[in-house]
Amino acid sequence: MSVFGTPEDFARALENLRAPDAAVRAKAAERQAQLTKPPGSLGRLEDIAIFMAGWQGRERPRVERARTAIFAGNHGVTAHGVSTFPASVTVQMVANFHAGGAAINALSEAAGLELRVIALELDTPTADFTVAPAMSEAECPAALNAGADVVTGDLDLLVVGEMGIGNSTAAAALCARSFGGAAADWVGPGTGVDASGVARKADVVARALAFHADAPATAFETLRRVGGREIAAISGAVVRARQLGVPVVLDGFISGSAVAPLAAVNPAIAEHCIAGHCSAEPGHAALLARLGLEPLLSLGMRLGEGSGAAVAVGIIRAALAAHDGMATFAEAQVSGSL
Amino acid sequence: MSVFGTPEDFARALENLRAPDAAVRAKAAERQAQLTKPPGSLGRLEDIAIFMAGWQGRERPRVERARTAIFAGNHGVTAHGVSTFPASVTVQMVANFHAGGAAINALSEAAGLELRVIALELDTPTADFTVAPAMSEAECPAALNAGADVVTGDLDLLVVGEMGIGNSTAAAALCARSFGGAAADWVGPGTGVDASGVARKADVVARALAFHADAPATAFETLRRVGGREIAAISGAVVRARQLGVPVVLDGFISGSAVAPLAAVNPAIAEHCIAGHCSAEPGHAALLARLGLEPLLSLGMRLGEGSGAAVAVGIIRAALAAHDGMATFAEAQVSGSL
Repeated sequence: MSVFGTPEDFARALENLRAPDAAVRAKAAERQAQLTKPPGSLGRLEDIAIFMAGWQGRERPRVERARTAIFAGNHGVTAHGVSTFPASVTVQMVANFHAGGAAINALSEAAGLELRVIALELDTPTADFTVAPAMSEAECPAALNAGADVVTGDLDLLVVGEMGIGNSTAAAALCARSFGGAAADWVGPGTGVDASGVARKADVVARALAFHADAPATAFETLRRVGGREIAAISGAVVRARQLGVPVVLDGFISGSAVAPLAAVNPAIAEHCIAGHCSAEPGHAALLARLGLEPLLSLGMRLGEGSGAAVAVGIIRAALAAHDGMATFAEAQVSGSL
Repeated sequence: MSVFGTPEDFARALENLRAPDAAVRAKAAERQAQLTKPPGSLGRLEDIAIFMAGWQGRERPRVERARTAIFAGNHGVTAHGVSTFPASVTVQMVANFHAGGAAINALSEAAGLELRVIALELDTPTADFTVAPAMSEAECPAALNAGADVVTGDLDLLVVGEMGIGNSTAAAALCARSFGGAAADWVGPGTGVDASGVARKADVVARALAFHADAPATAFETLRRVGGREIAAISGAVVRARQLGVPVVLDGFISGSAVAPLAAVNPAIAEHCIAGHCSAEPGHAALLARLGLEPLLSLGMRLGEGSGAAVAVGIIRAALAAHDGMATFAEAQVSGSL
């Protein structure tokens, strides 16, 4: 299936965004006001229930069929020594996902999420984006569609994650090209490089920004030039989920960076997204602010794979359990507010 | 059973606090370092796994048998109009807990927690603590023991919650008497009183502090004079859990205030406790800082009942799932750090 056959298809999808069901949202909000608790006392759990109701079109939303999609890709930019790990770790970790031994396996299972692993041309890293576009005109739509294909209309919720040695450098470049700021504002230690490694990443990103400075400022061109396959796949999945009314839980800096070029074109794209957590990667808080998203968790996590998003699903489940399971003041014969 | 037969029993228990198993903690930390992820990249999930290992004495801790204990009590101080809800709501909400219709029912079920409801002499509110000790010399140990009795050595985790119209005023008084500061520093809207209500609460707390100013600064006397039955029960449960090596998840401002008089005497009492969340009640952040606890969640919740703590159990479960389920670098044949 090729949902996004051409760059124009993708641009059109991003222009015409579905809205949540306002009537169902209102019904869910009305129900929240009748439940046996002081109004507003469940805080963001109440917002989550209403958010989910609006996107699912159900007054009592549910998380029965939910999926973690983890995309993996390799990056030519690793040639510049931007990671503590060798690029070969990407394929090793994909094997670990398939064998069930990674964090996202344990966390998806704990959260009741089906895990789908999508490895994208790991033998063919993207080009070094300091001297060329990361992906060709054909490679980028393939990645977008690989992401779109993982989203099915029967899903109650989609969690997106990624694996790709070197991809926090691509993420920084995407943020800088989408939202401005210096390269140094968006780079960080990633999996754990030291200060000189961070400086090296900033230099690589600055060179990439200069090389691609005159390219069109479309989401497609930004993803194609300084992104990566696994990141573009997340972009495609996020847009496709919006088309199908499936709410999305974003993970950390890299999955958020997949939304940055989309939001630079149409800020409403983040409206069906929940920020699962705020990563320890320094650029993430700034990115979430630009996306208009308030993270559910802030636990110092910085693993990627969808790990923080998977943990956040437990909070979403709790929100829906309270929304669905609680009695109203009338049902419980409890006196309301004076 | 009367674990704390006399005030002296309670004071002695608070002096002689059990330590976590350092050897097991070290083993759990060693395991974390070998799992297939950059070191430290699971952030606080790693700390939680090590914390639980130390208290449970198991390198791979678990949450199989876990309990929410919700204590309810009534407060003479409600005569001063410190709540938006009438005191009769306490007994109505206890009926709601038994019927399964409250937030804590839904949230405990979602978190896999057995729920135990302990209503403490609801027909006999505590005395108005602006003019008398809230509890008699006999009533306070009864409340402490009601809390201790709910803790059994087979528990992997204990969540503590409370219900008691008027108890955020008692909690503010406990914090002020334990840690100093003005009454106004510790009062807040509770279930939702307006500014004049908050001022009324501050006045009530200030009068209580003045009335009891010359009383002994023991944990027992502070709980007896300005606490409440459900709060003292939480204090008893927390100390008993420490004796039995059962980790505790605290909920919001009121459950935290039960630890304040204990921590004023022995700050190490909070070491087996996890702060489930930071409540929207303004005094809670300051209280957590005094207890040396960093909350897991900050979702604007302010319901009590153990609700925030129950949601946090999902994070603890996720931490233990990753700790137990992940493969090591050697098992997965993944290259470690360069």
